[in-house]
Order: sequence, then C-alpha cells, then structure tokens
Amino acid sequence: MASSTHHCAPCAACKFLRRKCIQGCVFSPYFPPEDPTKFANVHKIFGASNVSKLLNEIAPHQREDAVNSLAYEAEARLKDPVYGCVGAISVLQRQVLRLQKELDATNADLIRFSSNQSILRPSQSSGSSVQNAHVLPHYYGSYSWNNNP
Amino acid sequence: MASSTHHCAPCAACKFLRRKCIQGCVFSPYFPPEDPTKFANVHKIFGASNVSKLLNEIAPHQREDAVNSLAYEAEARLKDPVYGCVGAISVLQRQVLRLQKELDATNADLIRFSSNQSILRPSQSSGSSVQNAHVLPHYYGSYSWNNNP
Repeated sequence: MASSTHHCAPCAACKFLRRKCIQGCVFSPYFPPEDPTKFANVHKIFGASNVSKLLNEIAPHQREDAVNSLAYEAEARLKDPVYGCVGAISVLQRQVLRLQKELDATNADLIRFSSNQSILRPSQSSGSSVQNAHVLPHYYGSYSWNNNP
Repeated sequence: MASSTHHCAPCAACKFLRRKCIQGCVFSPYFPPEDPTKFANVHKIFGASNVSKLLNEIAPHQREDAVNSLAYEAEARLKDPVYGCVGAISVLQRQVLRLQKELDATNADLIRFSSNQSILRPSQSSGSSVQNAHVLPHYYGSYSWNNNP
C-alpha cells in the first residue's frame, strides 16, 4: 500500500502487470482488484497496450461501457476461439430470421381466419424478412462466413 | 520477390510488419496482399502477436473462420470504439424480444379470431420471451450494460 496509490490495493491491471498503480491509472476505475480475471482475459485477447490506447481515445463517461464490451468479447473469444462473440451474432441473426418467418406465417393465418383484416396489428416487421438486413449498421453485414458456427 | 517467398508478393501481414513472408507464414493464407486493410484492422485491435498465438492454437481448417471473425470484430470496434460488435448483439437481442412479443400478440389474436385453436402452428418460441435467454451459450449472458448502445 504505497502512499501514491489511490486504492488500498493496486487495480487488477497493475497487479497483473506488476507495476505501481498510480493516481490517474487508466485501468483502475474499470478493473477492480477483486476481479482479476476480467483484466487477464482482456489482456490475453487485446493486449494491455491496445486497451490503454482505446480507452484514451474515448470519452471518460463511455470507458466503463467500452471496458465491459471488451471484457465480453474477450470472454467469448476464450470460450470460442474460432468465432468469439461473432458466434452470438450468427445465432441471433438466425433467430431473428426464424421469428420473422414465424410471424409472417402467423399473420398469414390471421388473414385466412379473420373476416375483418383490420384486426391485424400494424407490424414494423411484417412483409419481408429482407428488412432485417437494415437493423444493423452497414458494416455488420460486410462479412460473410464460409461456415456458420 | 525473394526466391524464399511462397507468393509473388508478401502477404498483407508481412508487408505491414515489413518482414519477409516465408513458407509457412501463419498469416499468409488469410491475409492476401490485395486486402491490406483486413490485417491493419486486426493488428490495430488485437495485435499481430495475439492473432498469431490464437491461430497457432486452433486447427488449420478453422483458421479462416477465426480470421474472418477477428476481422469482423476489429472492423466493428474501429467503427464503434465503445461497443464494438457487442453493439450488434444488443441490437439483435432487442429485435428478438420485439419479434417474440409481436409473435405472442399475433398468436393471441389468432386464438381470439379463430374458432378452431388447432390451426395454431406449433411454435418453438411461443409462450414466454424469457426463453430467449437460452439460445446463446451461457457466457453470452454474463455481462450486463449500464447503458445500451
């Protein structure tokens, strides 16, 4: 417990990197000593230097979210080295397509069984499943896979 | 074009790293010289050393998918430094919940307007939206966000 530290214990990052945790440490607010795995995962996948650079490039009020999303990605990559959290995107995209098809079919049933078509609820998603491609920023759709996870 | 190289040109990784692209280069099959951005992105976010370690730890037939998922994550992180591709997961999860609710409501309409409930299509997703939590491996649900992107 050096007098220059701002916590009773160094943050998980400084402890992992065996360095002094100084006032203003960019990792300290987001990597508490009680959760050493969070930093270890992020360090293994992204590297401490890359994470430090990233944090310094974004606004302080967004850093916690950034660290949590990095930790999420790192954990996913460690559990699934091939697809990482892109595997989750693939699963969710398939689920969206399945639900959209099911909803379209159910709406078609509703048209058949209802004498009054005005009962149909106005649907953002009725029509064509192709609309799903537009819910994500364009760059999320820029990669195609040879094999789905 | 050194005689020891296995391509007419060094791969994008070796070109970026200004090193000789030797036979057996772990990057070469996945980072063609025509697409320098793919490696530059992956290098900036993960670091060449981490990517090299990761590729060496997985089976050769899965390396292309791994590189593509890393490139996808890297591109997403560069476009959205705070949420990266976890932003896409969040968007898709909300879309799944919305579709599930819409499907439940449409099925309820169908029950109301049909005299014969046997017309309802058997639905994997009917019932409760809570089921959605189970479509992803457990670790995908282990992080919660202070703010959604």
